[in-house]
Amino acid sequence: MNMNDIIIKKRDGGKLTKEEIKWTVSGITNGLIPDYQASALLMAILFRHMDEEETFELTEVMRDSGDVVDLSAIKGINVDKHSTGGVGDKVTLIVGPIAAACGVPIAKMSGRGLGFTGGTIDKLESIPGFRTTLEPEDFFAQVKRIGISLIGQSGHIAAADKKLYALRDVTGTVDDLSLIASSIMSKKLAAGSDAILLDVKCGRGAFMKTPEAAMKLGKLMCRIGKRAGKNTVAVITGMDQPLGNAVGNSLEVIEAIEVLKGKGPEDITELTFTLSGMMVQMGGKAESAEEGRRMAEEAVRSGAALEKFRQLIEAQGGDPRVIEDYSLMPQAKYKAEYIAEKSGYVRSVDPLTIGICSQHTGAGRQKKEDPIDPSAGVYLMKKTGDTVSKGDVLAVFMGDSEEKVGSALREAEFKKAFVIGDEEPEKEPLIKGIVGTDL
Amino acid sequence: MNMNDIIIKKRDGGKLTKEEIKWTVSGITNGLIPDYQASALLMAILFRHMDEEETFELTEVMRDSGDVVDLSAIKGINVDKHSTGGVGDKVTLIVGPIAAACGVPIAKMSGRGLGFTGGTIDKLESIPGFRTTLEPEDFFAQVKRIGISLIGQSGHIAAADKKLYALRDVTGTVDDLSLIASSIMSKKLAAGSDAILLDVKCGRGAFMKTPEAAMKLGKLMCRIGKRAGKNTVAVITGMDQPLGNAVGNSLEVIEAIEVLKGKGPEDITELTFTLSGMMVQMGGKAESAEEGRRMAEEAVRSGAALEKFRQLIEAQGGDPRVIEDYSLMPQAKYKAEYIAEKSGYVRSVDPLTIGICSQHTGAGRQKKEDPIDPSAGVYLMKKTGDTVSKGDVLAVFMGDSEEKVGSALREAEFKKAFVIGDEEPEKEPLIKGIVGTDL
Repeated sequence: MNMNDIIIKKRDGGKLTKEEIKWTVSGITNGLIPDYQASALLMAILFRHMDEEETFELTEVMRDSGDVVDLSAIKGINVDKHSTGGVGDKVTLIVGPIAAACGVPIAKMSGRGLGFTGGTIDKLESIPGFRTTLEPEDFFAQVKRIGISLIGQSGHIAAADKKLYALRDVTGTVDDLSLIASSIMSKKLAAGSDAILLDVKCGRGAFMKTPEAAMKLGKLMCRIGKRAGKNTVAVITGMDQPLGNAVGNSLEVIEAIEVLKGKGPEDITELTFTLSGMMVQMGGKAESAEEGRRMAEEAVRSGAALEKFRQLIEAQGGDPRVIEDYSLMPQAKYKAEYIAEKSGYVRSVDPLTIGICSQHTGAGRQKKEDPIDPSAGVYLMKKTGDTVSKGDVLAVFMGDSEEKVGSALREAEFKKAFVIGDEEPEKEPLIKGIVGTDL
Repeated sequence: MNMNDIIIKKRDGGKLTKEEIKWTVSGITNGLIPDYQASALLMAILFRHMDEEETFELTEVMRDSGDVVDLSAIKGINVDKHSTGGVGDKVTLIVGPIAAACGVPIAKMSGRGLGFTGGTIDKLESIPGFRTTLEPEDFFAQVKRIGISLIGQSGHIAAADKKLYALRDVTGTVDDLSLIASSIMSKKLAAGSDAILLDVKCGRGAFMKTPEAAMKLGKLMCRIGKRAGKNTVAVITGMDQPLGNAVGNSLEVIEAIEVLKGKGPEDITELTFTLSGMMVQMGGKAESAEEGRRMAEEAVRSGAALEKFRQLIEAQGGDPRVIEDYSLMPQAKYKAEYIAEKSGYVRSVDPLTIGICSQHTGAGRQKKEDPIDPSAGVYLMKKTGDTVSKGDVLAVFMGDSEEKVGSALREAEFKKAFVIGDEEPEKEPLIKGIVGTDL
């Protein structure tokens, strides 16, 4: 085979064979095919697309390019949950303990990632003492013992995707449905769960801008999951403003605890009940998602879910007293307030701008090597639909660096993160649709 | 500026500014922008194209990325001639001496290049003793003295194009009109002539497959030439079979001498009279192309053109006796004959196959470092429209290696380089159209 011929085949709208995809991906991964040929192919794919068969082949080849985790030693139906990413998305911290409290084993590996805040793993590490690296035998033993463990993803999962994603990121070739779907699903399939629940975000603060695009991506990932023999469900959820009020690391852990106490913001509470209900059903502990949701609500009401989170913190070396005493979590040294210039309704809170502000405070990384500030982030005092009076605090920016916190505030003001108007905005439903393996 | 943003801008159909093009090309040339970003941009250009302004900016930036030759020391209007490349294209060897004999100064730098045969410079080097590297002062002195010099192109002409072309060649990004036009014109503009005559080939043996595509490319290059202040004319000519009967290096020099003696094959004689007539007009030595053509015919009839070629050989250290005694040119040790299997008319001679056969004989290079065999090549005994009888020799393959010559013959037979049928084929005109700066 010849890489130039493969590029030209795709460029001219041809369909790549399983052998061509295998040969190409292994050549790119082991460095025999130079990056400049890989990126030309990626751009050709962006214009000509891959059909479902090609996408599935690519997913499988990428899945097999690194370690494939075997979770069969864990009894029960392991359910993994993945979000395509948004601002203020602390869902895993909440649905993990709830589903585990309902009897679904949660053996989850999460990423750090670049972005507006740290990833799930970074958030957990803001809990003093919390360890996110466990030996495989300890990981399995913990899941058997308390039903849940959340650890960092090994660097050897889907090695080809890692290489390809790094290339896509700098060559304008991220935004292709088949490339996005195969990237996500190759990692999910390699992570070894029996079932996969996907939270596909749409809106200004998400990768997919419209519900239709998110639905398309969700359906494609479900079909990939089905071909690979995994029950896969995708929930399309809105990301038109940040989820909840907290954006950061320590801040989001605290908000997650509030939700587990039944005292969290409405939007994140609603979303996590729905998602954990579905996980309970997918995990075979409820007949329907509705029954699962009732069980989830009960697990929060009874305190079982919060207790599961406490066990998780304790098992991984963290200080469980943070649950009662938030002052034990990292505290920001500096704060800056974003003040309303006029009275009215909050018409919108731009998640993208809030995300960028969060990164400005030091809560997120720009480069892989960057440290993150666990105390940093944004706390929204108002959300879309709220009424405000001139002089009210709309949001608080916080972190360990006065300069960074100030820069976040200026960014928010400059970009008008909050839009205030006279009319009350229409309320959009957070959940836009659900697609499953059989759709 | 950020390369990823520039790639995305072009990917989404945007128009690159002069500054963006300049920044990108200089980054690619000096290595600050990695090849994988360059190739992604090239693929995006292939799908989204560049408009005329972008193409012109790219051409200028590439022209200025290396040496720009100053021919102003040479009196008169310097006319350069460029062919987009075909099989058996020895036109420069003929029109150079004719135009020079008519008083047009010919100070031409030619390439070697990869391909079916060597380039003009390789062909000239098959003349024993001929030197294609001259010091600049000797080059200028020779043009002043005898009106013509043909030397090798410096490696420092259009450095950016060299780098970009190498990348396009292996990333499926050759076939874009704006990239082709800017690549050719950047080198032509850097070569310093006052006027440029382009021979744009079309047909099976050429880069452009149809007259329409060739016309489009010709028009674009003329407009680029005009914007750069150079009188530019493009002639669209057919390449549905090899030009003339000889394909190789020494073989083509001999055929060029035959044309200069007025004894060459009809097609190449006709084409070179037309082209040299235009060069004479563009060089200000005739009022019209028709008058130029009459002067060209007279220069051949009188022997002045052949005498000019003799002076050129002598001036550059070659043995001028080759003009009378072809046995002084490199002679192939091995020959293999391609025999007609049936009688009828030659319906077609596939130039692409003959070109590849020529490369098989050793007449062309596959890699830059490959040596070429000056004696090797293909001699066509029959051309399209000729009648043949079963057992006639259709073509002779020759070269210094028995194995290579045999491989060329097998290739020709396997690919059916000659198609013989019962009906006489229609005669296609060789010249399909002419476009000029003002069109």
